[in-house]
Amino acid sequence: MTTRRSSASPFQLPQWAIRLARSQHSLFLSKESRMRFVIALASTNVTRGTGGPFGAAVFERTGWRLIAVGVNLVESTRCSHAHAEMVALANAQQTVGRFDLGAANFPAHELVTSCEPCAMCYGAIPWSGIRSVLCGARASDAEAIGFDEGAKPKNWVAELKSRRITVTRDLCRKEATAVLQEYQQRGGAVYGARWG
Amino acid sequence: MTTRRSSASPFQLPQWAIRLARSQHSLFLSKESRMRFVIALASTNVTRGTGGPFGAAVFERTGWRLIAVGVNLVESTRCSHAHAEMVALANAQQTVGRFDLGAANFPAHELVTSCEPCAMCYGAIPWSGIRSVLCGARASDAEAIGFDEGAKPKNWVAELKSRRITVTRDLCRKEATAVLQEYQQRGGAVYGARWG
Repeated sequence: MTTRRSSASPFQLPQWAIRLARSQHSLFLSKESRMRFVIALASTNVTRGTGGPFGAAVFERTGWRLIAVGVNLVESTRCSHAHAEMVALANAQQTVGRFDLGAANFPAHELVTSCEPCAMCYGAIPWSGIRSVLCGARASDAEAIGFDEGAKPKNWVAELKSRRITVTRDLCRKEATAVLQEYQQRGGAVYGARWG
Repeated sequence: MTTRRSSASPFQLPQWAIRLARSQHSLFLSKESRMRFVIALASTNVTRGTGGPFGAAVFERTGWRLIAVGVNLVESTRCSHAHAEMVALANAQQTVGRFDLGAANFPAHELVTSCEPCAMCYGAIPWSGIRSVLCGARASDAEAIGFDEGAKPKNWVAELKSRRITVTRDLCRKEATAVLQEYQQRGGAVYGARWG
C-alpha cells in the first residue's frame, strides 16, 4: 500500500486501521480476497470498539494493490458522513492526490464494501471516479439489525451502470452479514433517520 | 455565529468564508434572508476562484442563528465529497459537537442550499439530523450548465418527508441560477460522472 497520507485527509482512521493497511504488501488478485479484507476491517472495527460494523477499501485495478481503507467512524469523528465507503473514497483521493479516481491516463479503481452502499454512499460513487463496486451484505441485512439505509432509486445498479460503473453483489454475503449480527449481539449503537 | 470550530472539521473552508461566517451577528428570520446568504456564498466562491458555484449553510431553527457555512471545495480539497451541503453539514456537526443535528432535547436545524441537493447530498440529509431543507436553483438548472446531479429517487421530496424532513424548493431560484450561469460564462470547471 502507498503509505503517503495527506494531513488534509478528511477522516482520521484509528491507529489499528492505519497499521493494518500499511502492512498489506501482497496483491489482492481475487474478488474474494478483497472482500474478506474489508469484512475483516468491519469485524475489527467492532471488536476494537472504534465504530459501526462496516468496512471498505479502494484497490487499483491494474495490479490490485490496496490504495486506501475505510471503516465506519460516525461516532468518533462526530460526522454523519463518515461511513466506511466515504472514508475509503476520501482517503484514496488523498493518497493519489486527485478528486477523480477515474481520471484519464491513470489506473482505474474499485470500491469494495462489506455492505451495499446506503443512499449517500451510492450517490457519492459516480463523483469519486470509481469504476467498479463489490458489495458483501445487502442493505436489507443492515436493515435487519436496525440500520436505515435510506431510499436509493430502485434501479440503482442500472443507474451506476449507465455511468460506466459495474456492481457485483452478494460476494461472501454470509460472512459479511455475520459481522452485522455480531455487532447487534454486542449491543452496538444503531442510528439512522427519524420516521414519520 | 458560534466561532468554535474543531480542528477535526473534515473540510477546511477558505479564509474569506470563515471571516464572512464569523461576521454574521444578525438573526436570519426570513427564508429569503437565509437563501440570499447562501447565494452570496456561492457567488463569492466563484469570484474568489475557490470552487464551484454552490453555497450552503446550517441554521438553528429556534432563533435562526447561523451555525455553519459550506461552499463547493471539490478541487481545493481533492475530495469529491466536498459539495457545499456536505461541507456545511460536517462543519455544523463539528460546531455543535454531535453527529446528529436532530438529537432529542437540542434545537432543530435547517439546511439551506443554493441548489437542490445531488444524489449524494440528498442521501446524506437523513443521517445528519437536519429537519428542513430550503433549495434555490433546481438540479435541472445545474445540469443546464453541464453538471451531473446524479439519480435521486423520483419521489425524493416525499422520501425525506417520510423521515420527517420538510423540503421547500424554488426559493429565489432566478438569483441562484444566475450564479450558475456566471460560473459557466467564466469557463469554470464542470465535472461529474462518465456516461454510457
